[in-house]
Amino acid sequence: MESVDRPSSVAGKVMAILEAFAPGGVRLTLTEVCRRAGLPLATGHRLVGELTGGGFLERLPDGSYRVGMRLWRIGAQASAATALRELALPHMEDLYEVTHENVQLAVLSEHKALYLERLRGPRSVPIVTRVAAELPLHATGVGRVLLAYAPEAFVDEVLAEGLSPHTPHTTTDPARLRACLAEVRRTGYAVTNEEMTLGSCSVAAPVRDAGGEVLAALSLVTRRQGADLRRLVPAVLGAARALSHDVATHGGSTEWKDLA
Amino acid sequence: MESVDRPSSVAGKVMAILEAFAPGGVRLTLTEVCRRAGLPLATGHRLVGELTGGGFLERLPDGSYRVGMRLWRIGAQASAATALRELALPHMEDLYEVTHENVQLAVLSEHKALYLERLRGPRSVPIVTRVAAELPLHATGVGRVLLAYAPEAFVDEVLAEGLSPHTPHTTTDPARLRACLAEVRRTGYAVTNEEMTLGSCSVAAPVRDAGGEVLAALSLVTRRQGADLRRLVPAVLGAARALSHDVATHGGSTEWKDLA
Repeated sequence: MESVDRPSSVAGKVMAILEAFAPGGVRLTLTEVCRRAGLPLATGHRLVGELTGGGFLERLPDGSYRVGMRLWRIGAQASAATALRELALPHMEDLYEVTHENVQLAVLSEHKALYLERLRGPRSVPIVTRVAAELPLHATGVGRVLLAYAPEAFVDEVLAEGLSPHTPHTTTDPARLRACLAEVRRTGYAVTNEEMTLGSCSVAAPVRDAGGEVLAALSLVTRRQGADLRRLVPAVLGAARALSHDVATHGGSTEWKDLA
Repeated sequence: MESVDRPSSVAGKVMAILEAFAPGGVRLTLTEVCRRAGLPLATGHRLVGELTGGGFLERLPDGSYRVGMRLWRIGAQASAATALRELALPHMEDLYEVTHENVQLAVLSEHKALYLERLRGPRSVPIVTRVAAELPLHATGVGRVLLAYAPEAFVDEVLAEGLSPHTPHTTTDPARLRACLAEVRRTGYAVTNEEMTLGSCSVAAPVRDAGGEVLAALSLVTRRQGADLRRLVPAVLGAARALSHDVATHGGSTEWKDLA
């Protein structure tokens, strides 16, 4: 993500530097950090040095930088993402044990599905998700669920951005996508067939807070298709319901508000 | 953790504010943030406002703050912790499936064991670990392994801090701990019996990089004891070896240097 605005305050510059690493799996040279953050080299050099000294970034032997353990630890300790992930993990493990398929948990993040957790077994189908990755809403099972229960205005915004094809099977027609979303609301789950990746299908179900608001989606991603795929629906619905129950018990809707 | 030094630069102040949330599970009022960060209220108010605007912190309906999704995402995307965790998860899942016990992955963080990941099943023994939590080296299985392969000077430092008792069974005698560490090096694994928590025992083994350096420890935590506990040793050793192989394949020792 290229930064367009040049941050003016020092705190803004620090955030812009850290944001430079958000696209993931990233090691950046000082020059790349400054370019992404929209900072002059001298300013970037000084701030990157301070962040490295504090363990927020780390400098690798080849001179490039990546996110440091301190930053990971602060994020992993305290965010709402971690709280939901901690509640979800036992249910995700149960679902994995029953199915031996990829199990995923995602929330809305702007116009994307942000993956909070993923369990993946040695025999599961290879998938494109990584923890903290973002994938399109219209082409993924979790995204379809999150979109189905989002406000109408939000759906309009996503449709206005255009529905990019990821495989020949991706739903790119707005009217057809709206029909799919209505079907999700009617049945309570989403099924996608090779819309994100060829050979991968998914079943996804909503996770709700105490007030019934959908705040996350849980899914299986598998090679199975057709009737064999649909046999997974009860397991996904059961795990999503069990997690919803835990969410409702472990804090009111205010706790999770920012995730919904 | 109370901050003693008052940070002087703005970047230092931003890091001090974020560090205020490191102890975990934390929601803080503005006053608490400023006290922990060693900042005057006016400065803290301005910077916390900026960090909240950028999604690095979030303000809850009761006016308190916690770490925001942006910070979680940056940390989860790019750090060495995440890279190791991604490699480890399939092996941890295998170990969980075979044993149905708690499975944990930890690295050294100053004089503590920092937990990068934990799998915990519905039937596992309750444990005190959380992801990103830090526990004492001398009283945990993973800590015993990390300590056993650390430089002698590091062991001296840890012993100089004193060995706090967590249960009546904690090894608090330095000579006895040194004997335990020698035993770990001789056998290649550590066994602890209710030294951190009554009713919980552990088996832990080292994860090595391509150069043979120990960079992490993998463990099972269980109710089992004695011969029944020792029956878990081959599974832990096998998983740690398989993970070490993956680590060696997926990047040289420079990749993981900061974790060791």
